[in-house]
Formats: sequence, structure tokens, C-alpha cells
Amino acid sequence: MKIKELQKKLREKGIDAALLYNMETNEENPNMRYLANYKGYGFLIVPAKKRPFLVAPLMDIEYLLKSGMKFYLMKKNFMEKIKKKLRNPRKIGVEARNFSIFALKKFRKHFKAKFIDVSELIEELRITKTKEEIKIIKEASGITNGIINRCIGNFGKFRTEKDVERFLKIECIKNNVEPSFNIIVASGISPATPHHIPSNKPLRRGFCVIDFGIRYKGYCTDVTRTVFIGSPSEKEKRMYSLVLSVQEKAIEKIKIGMNYSELDDFAKKEFGKYAKRFIHSLGHGLGIEVHESSMLYDKNQKIENGMYFTIEPGLYFPLRFGIRIEDDIFIHRGKVIDLTTVSKQLVCIKPKNF
Amino acid sequence: MKIKELQKKLREKGIDAALLYNMETNEENPNMRYLANYKGYGFLIVPAKKRPFLVAPLMDIEYLLKSGMKFYLMKKNFMEKIKKKLRNPRKIGVEARNFSIFALKKFRKHFKAKFIDVSELIEELRITKTKEEIKIIKEASGITNGIINRCIGNFGKFRTEKDVERFLKIECIKNNVEPSFNIIVASGISPATPHHIPSNKPLRRGFCVIDFGIRYKGYCTDVTRTVFIGSPSEKEKRMYSLVLSVQEKAIEKIKIGMNYSELDDFAKKEFGKYAKRFIHSLGHGLGIEVHESSMLYDKNQKIENGMYFTIEPGLYFPLRFGIRIEDDIFIHRGKVIDLTTVSKQLVCIKPKNF
Repeated sequence: MKIKELQKKLREKGIDAALLYNMETNEENPNMRYLANYKGYGFLIVPAKKRPFLVAPLMDIEYLLKSGMKFYLMKKNFMEKIKKKLRNPRKIGVEARNFSIFALKKFRKHFKAKFIDVSELIEELRITKTKEEIKIIKEASGITNGIINRCIGNFGKFRTEKDVERFLKIECIKNNVEPSFNIIVASGISPATPHHIPSNKPLRRGFCVIDFGIRYKGYCTDVTRTVFIGSPSEKEKRMYSLVLSVQEKAIEKIKIGMNYSELDDFAKKEFGKYAKRFIHSLGHGLGIEVHESSMLYDKNQKIENGMYFTIEPGLYFPLRFGIRIEDDIFIHRGKVIDLTTVSKQLVCIKPKNF
Repeated sequence: MKIKELQKKLREKGIDAALLYNMETNEENPNMRYLANYKGYGFLIVPAKKRPFLVAPLMDIEYLLKSGMKFYLMKKNFMEKIKKKLRNPRKIGVEARNFSIFALKKFRKHFKAKFIDVSELIEELRITKTKEEIKIIKEASGITNGIINRCIGNFGKFRTEKDVERFLKIECIKNNVEPSFNIIVASGISPATPHHIPSNKPLRRGFCVIDFGIRYKGYCTDVTRTVFIGSPSEKEKRMYSLVLSVQEKAIEKIKIGMNYSELDDFAKKEFGKYAKRFIHSLGHGLGIEVHESSMLYDKNQKIENGMYFTIEPGLYFPLRFGIRIEDDIFIHRGKVIDLTTVSKQLVCIKPKNF
């Protein structure tokens, strides 16, 4: 996506080429995935003026073909090949976030160029989604809503947090998708920990937080619902309503051009005396990665058309309980679209062993 | 594991502290997982002389508690806290592979120290496994063998490569483990591509390569078996026997003290005129990561007690067929232990739709 826009930016900055690579980790490089639809090993070279190409080992040929990009197979002296193609570049863009010091050292041996960080140039492109991306994201949300609805619908059958996790994993397999992060299912006092690890202990009375998302055609969703096991007290109902109202008000508040931090501040304020129990940020960017950089690193990020992010206020009372409600929001032609259609009414469940 | 050995190495090299961190990616930092049994966000600080500690956000409290390490919660000015604890370090070790240029820049602002790459110091520690690791690895292999045996036993029921993949994924869920990498199931001409992506097309006559591994308690396995769909010709049987004999001979050849590259060269030689059809390396280190660095980066790595790696020769004939056989090997007290007990006799299968 948007590889031509990157080339334009490179020309504007007087950078001869961007050099992305993935050789050290066992994961894909999200920027290579984004720009070249490539998820294998190797290099992506984006000259400012000529056609971009991949250089990768033969064993990743299917990923190369799937990408639709021009490519060369990685042979001995492939660095020389890249050098020749780039004709003595003086300024090379690299990704400071995905590029290790180790790689930089290696590259300095081959290129007598100045290395410049272009991560932001690339990641800025990723902030607003294209038509193709929007199509995928909507499909991904549809699948996610279905899975969570079925999960809540079947909740009475689960005995442990692990049961819930297993159900969600099997739903992923049935839908030919992957979970986009480690599934969180937290019952009893566990929801007080936002990153709880599902356990084999019986589900307990109280709030149960289910935080789950999928990766579909490369794109992530991330949704949280909190259900109640047993019958909630008046206070518990009030606390749930508070989180829900902050979430709904924050979504209503979203406007193009406003700073994301304003939204975050607004939510903190709405929690009133409970603000200190809201221990994380209101949300984060979504896309190729489940946590995308824009909002994580820059609170002054302005809300724009094409942005895709979460709104997920929560309250956490250590050793007592926790509540979180998270929707995936997409901004389309000035409108705020809540992609998460799963009901937010507090569902009260009586599981098998309860 | 071995955090004290790292401290000893730091002292020997005159490095005041090693600083590992994981704030940018959505994955765990394998070295933090290794040294501190920690898989959340945050920092691991290993002073050369004092007690190591983690600094992480409150939301990762469960991972912090699970690690058993000393820790501080990440608050404003946490960098100042780290600085104070380290008392003006002059030399700080960072991981050149997992440490981004971005992070380095940030750290330089806070520390007026010399930054030195200690990735190799740490990754050297990971090459030979401890008693605790061996125990986990053996259990992981047992689970993997069971899953692959059941997969081959059920092969007649599968219609597509995706069916096989789904079966393996569901087995993972049943066994409470994760696949350690993208599962490969390649039938027809697809096994000619080592990194084939499972498709929805019907399984076809010919070799079918199944490359699968699990992650169990943090440790990876990686096993490949090639079955035959239909009845193999004499030539096909010969080609399979060739790969199998090279694999068995390579395993027999393993000796403590020999260079890993000798083993690789030996396998290439044994393939005779087919050597050029063996397009990847004979194997790779295993452990916390499914591809560990030792053997990938250093062909002169000597085979030692406690090493855990794959032996996986293969032959690849583009647009025709491919064969690969991969076992997980562990070196224990001078003995070569083949952890993969799944039979290597060529299994011929007649699937439903064939």
C-alpha cells in the first residue's frame, strides 16, 4: 500500500532509497507487509525514483509471488546487486524501530552512505487506511463480532477461563483467522489486572473480562467485553454503567481535527474520583499491528479520516475487580463508525459449576 | 536462566550493566524471556554486581509476579530511577539485535555512557541448555511426537492442506500449546517450496510435506515428516530413501567438538549430484526461538553438550516435488539424542477424495 507515496516523501527529503529488511526475527516486518504485501525473509528496496523490489531467499518464493512485487532471489553477493541497482546512494532511509544496531553495522560496511531514520515517514502512511484496507478491516470486524457473540452466547457452558480461551481459539480456526494477541479471559479478582493470563481455576462470581481480537488478511481487531458471573450488586451495576457511559461519551466526543490526547483527558475526567483506577491509555491505533505506533507515541496525533483505533476505558481495583469495554472505531468521511456491534448491556451468566 | 553467568561475563568485560527492553513490538523479547522468565513489556536491568530487576507497567503485574524477579512498576521518571540504581554507569550493554536505533537514541539522552553490544554474550548462554530447559524440551518433544503421529494416523480423512493445518491447530489447543511457527502442509508440486502456505485445494498425488512445531512453556520444537499420497514410483521411493539416508547419516556423524559447518558440508556431499537441490541449511538451533542464532550466524559453531538443534535435509525440484525430513536433536553427556520418535518409513496414504 502507498509505496508511491513513500517514494514521493523520499524524493522530498532527498533520500535516495529506503531499505527495509527482515532477516533476524521469526516474525514478519510490519512495514514490509504493509508496503509490499510481503511476509517472508529478505529485503525491500524502495528507490526514490525507480521501481521498488524485493530480494529474498528461494524458499520464500511463494510469499514473493503473492506480493506481486518485482523481486530478485538472494544469492551470494546479493548486497553487491542491491548496491549496483541503487548506484551509489548517498542517503539511505532505514527503519530505526525495526532496524537493529547489528544490521546498521553490517550495512555500513557495504554502503558509504548516510543512514537516516524513515520509520516515521512509513508509519505516518499507515495511520490512515486506504479503501482496500477498509474493506478488509470491515470484514475482520464482522468475523470478530460473530465470534464474541457466540462466545457470550455459550458462556454458561464454560467452567474455567481456559475453557473460554479454547472456545475462542477454535472459533478462530473455524473462521480461518488467527488471534491477534494473547487472549485475555479474567474472572473473579483477575480482571483487576489488564493483562491477565487465563487460568485453569473455576470461573468465579463477579466481572469477567474477555479481551480478544483476530488477524484477518493481515489486519487486526481488538475487542473487550465484560460479562458478570452471578448477580451483580447495585454498586457493581453502577461501576459497570460508569465505564460504559465513559466509553459511549468518549466515542461521541470523537471529532476530526481534535488531538487524541484531548479524548484521553476527557475520559480521565469523566471517571471523576475513579480516574486513578483507569491505569492505561484510552486506546491505541490498529492495523497491520494490534498496537500501531501513531497514538502510542504521539499524544498530539490529530484524529483524521481513515483512522482505525480502539476506545477502551477500564477501571481496575487491585485484588477486587476490574471492568473494561473496548470497541474498534473507524473514521470515515467525517463520521465515527463503531465497528464493534456486540451488545454492551451487562450480560449476567450462571455458568455450569456456579 | 543463567543470569548470574551473564553478570560474570559483564564483570569480565568491564560492563557496568546490561539493559534489555521490550516496549516497541507486540512480541516478547526472547532474551528477557530467557534471562528473567518475563514476557511482558518493560525493561530488564542486569547490573554487573547487584541484583537484577525488571521495570514494567502495572498492567503486566502478573507477568512480573510469574517471573519471580525483583521489580519496580513503571512510573513517570522511571528512567531516573534506573539511572539512580545503576549509579552513573560508564559502559552499558545493549542487545544490538533486539535493540533498535530508535531506542539507542532515546537512551543516549538519559545515559552519558558507552553502549556496547552484548547480544552475543547473552545468546552464547542460550546455546547450551540447562537441566530445567532440558526437562521442558523433552516434554515438548513428547507432545509434538504425539500430535504428528495422530496427524499421520488421521491423514486419510483430510481433503485439503488446510484440513491438515486445522487438525494440527486443534491438537495444539487440546494440548494447551501454541504452534511455534506458521504450519507448512505442502502437497502435489508445492513441497518444492520449503515455505509453502497451506491451501484450500484438494490434496494431490505425490509427496506431502508437513512441517510443524509447538511452543511449550516457552520452548520450541520443529519437526518435518513427508508422507506420500497415492502409490510412489520406484524413482520417488529412491528419492525419499536418499533424503532419509542423508538425514540418518548426518545424525550418526554428529560428534562433540566438530564444527556445525562440517555436518552441513557432509550432507551436501552425500546428496551427490542432487546437492544443488538441497537449497537450505542442514538445520538450525532451537530453544526459546524456533530459529536460534548460534548456528544461523556462525557456521563455525562447535557442537557441544546441551545443544538442541534440527537436522533437516531436503530435496526440492521446482514445479515437480519436494521432500524434507526433520528431527530435533539434543546432545546430552556426549550422546546424540534424537527427540523425534515419529517413524520415518515412507507412509503411503489414500485420502478421501483421491
